[in-house]
Amino acid sequence: MSKIRIGIVGYGNLGRGVEAAINQNADMELVAVFTRRDPATVSIQSSNVPVYLVEDAPNYKEQIDVMILCGGSAKDLPEQVPHFAQWFNTIDSYDTHAKIPEFFDAVEAVAQKSDTVSIISVGWDPGLFSLNRLLGETVLPEGNTYTFWGDGLSQGHSDAVRRIEGVKNAVQYTLPIKEAVNRVRNGENPELTTREKHARECFVVLEEGADAATIEKEIKEMPNYFADYDTTVNFITEAEFKENHQGMPHGGFVIRSGQSGESDKQIMEFSLTLESNPMFTSSVLVAYARAAYKLHAKGDKGAKTVFDIPYGLLSPKSPADLRKELL
Amino acid sequence: MSKIRIGIVGYGNLGRGVEAAINQNADMELVAVFTRRDPATVSIQSSNVPVYLVEDAPNYKEQIDVMILCGGSAKDLPEQVPHFAQWFNTIDSYDTHAKIPEFFDAVEAVAQKSDTVSIISVGWDPGLFSLNRLLGETVLPEGNTYTFWGDGLSQGHSDAVRRIEGVKNAVQYTLPIKEAVNRVRNGENPELTTREKHARECFVVLEEGADAATIEKEIKEMPNYFADYDTTVNFITEAEFKENHQGMPHGGFVIRSGQSGESDKQIMEFSLTLESNPMFTSSVLVAYARAAYKLHAKGDKGAKTVFDIPYGLLSPKSPADLRKELL
Repeated sequence: MSKIRIGIVGYGNLGRGVEAAINQNADMELVAVFTRRDPATVSIQSSNVPVYLVEDAPNYKEQIDVMILCGGSAKDLPEQVPHFAQWFNTIDSYDTHAKIPEFFDAVEAVAQKSDTVSIISVGWDPGLFSLNRLLGETVLPEGNTYTFWGDGLSQGHSDAVRRIEGVKNAVQYTLPIKEAVNRVRNGENPELTTREKHARECFVVLEEGADAATIEKEIKEMPNYFADYDTTVNFITEAEFKENHQGMPHGGFVIRSGQSGESDKQIMEFSLTLESNPMFTSSVLVAYARAAYKLHAKGDKGAKTVFDIPYGLLSPKSPADLRKELL
Repeated sequence: MSKIRIGIVGYGNLGRGVEAAINQNADMELVAVFTRRDPATVSIQSSNVPVYLVEDAPNYKEQIDVMILCGGSAKDLPEQVPHFAQWFNTIDSYDTHAKIPEFFDAVEAVAQKSDTVSIISVGWDPGLFSLNRLLGETVLPEGNTYTFWGDGLSQGHSDAVRRIEGVKNAVQYTLPIKEAVNRVRNGENPELTTREKHARECFVVLEEGADAATIEKEIKEMPNYFADYDTTVNFITEAEFKENHQGMPHGGFVIRSGQSGESDKQIMEFSLTLESNPMFTSSVLVAYARAAYKLHAKGDKGAKTVFDIPYGLLSPKSPADLRKELL
């Protein structure tokens, strides 16, 4: 059987993760990487795979079954996904929750016209966590859904700390508060404030001469990012930073705490503990690329989300084998 | 909008649970209960719903959108599901894992011919656990999948103990072994024997004059059921039995411990903590009844499993609302 031919647009952490994930799936092959940089300057892990300019992508329409778009949600994806959907089935990890409806509509308009399939907002949140939120409220319509994130590195919050004058380097970890988690797992159905659900912990390397107390105050009082949370600020050396804070761990859990028809307490939980957030997201993108390929092969088209995709389409196995081995 | 009209075949724990779950879903209504007993002797919770003889069900073809079959897997379902699929969309909880392929084929043959949709083997295992086994091995192709059950009441093992001479009443709980679970959650990928994964605990009421030591030995050495496990046997009074062992709790977890493309450890877990196993299973059946209804309305037909059903079809909400609220 011929392999599913994948293209990657954008070669950062996510693109590199997609490349690595493709190598774990025997039914797929990476055909090309597309970049906005000078291709000669982009060195990728697979020595036999060409790197092209992103403008040249349409020339490879016949060689690529699914294009995985690995750009950022702020600027890249809202523009790139509708653009590439003109020629390719696409997968993206668009994660600006509030703007998903308009993003969907933009992609849908193009994909319907070009007979391509685009599965949008794939990953773990949005993505696998969204699926479990849906499952929870559908199976247990009477109850509450709780999403906790962490322990994990927050890129946005780390950036916010790094923008403060006098900060040389910084990371921020989001920590779910154990007491709140335990109350939810016990079926207490608590109402939790922002502060009661998550804490924030920063590790900061100061510029020479910067004042620790001033910076700590500035972090803790920063509106939106930190003011609503209990925040701990640790000042560390550059060496310690390099030693202990280079990873990108993350995870979290979605808990549905409900009761079934005769008032029995029922708890459903889905959790992730990830050593690398981008590598896991990439693995999810690649599984959904398989589903896009299968849907397109059946004549389907248009924008889709994880809610529209049966799990069976994610697997390289046949429906009969899935029923036999996994049901 | 008119409601989805549900019929129930078989009014035991599961049928009663389905009735209760329908009452939690505003877009559904229970139309009739069908029984093999004399309908006059079956008293159901919903006073306004009629009870009919199971033989009369075909007469109600036009009044029922989905029939939920609540019989047992050993004898009822293999016969009933293909029978009812002649006239109705059906949902069942057939759980004899090894025989699912042949069961599927039998239902598929009928449902294709009669233009009905039958979703088979719905519940939590098979069902939600199966979905998470599939998701785990697909997203993380390099890794191991572990399923643990419990703490929970096992009906089959309780029955086996009750069949022993001198036992007046008994229950058996399956307990996942914490040390094994923790090793899996830590990403150690251990190879675990049957004995290392689960323990069994029995609570037994003796007939007068029965010998405890003999019965304990007989339980612990029973092949298939207990011989491969560490089993604890507690002898209790009838009063204590009635006080503490009437519930049907269950649950468990599916853990996928894998590594993504650059050797990062990634752990996915889905877990259930259920005060009532049959009530939860019923809630799952009812959610999938909605999916069967929607599929049939779109002109689909044939036998399906949970692997074929996108989560979006489980929800009463529109795809646009799901994208807006839950993605």
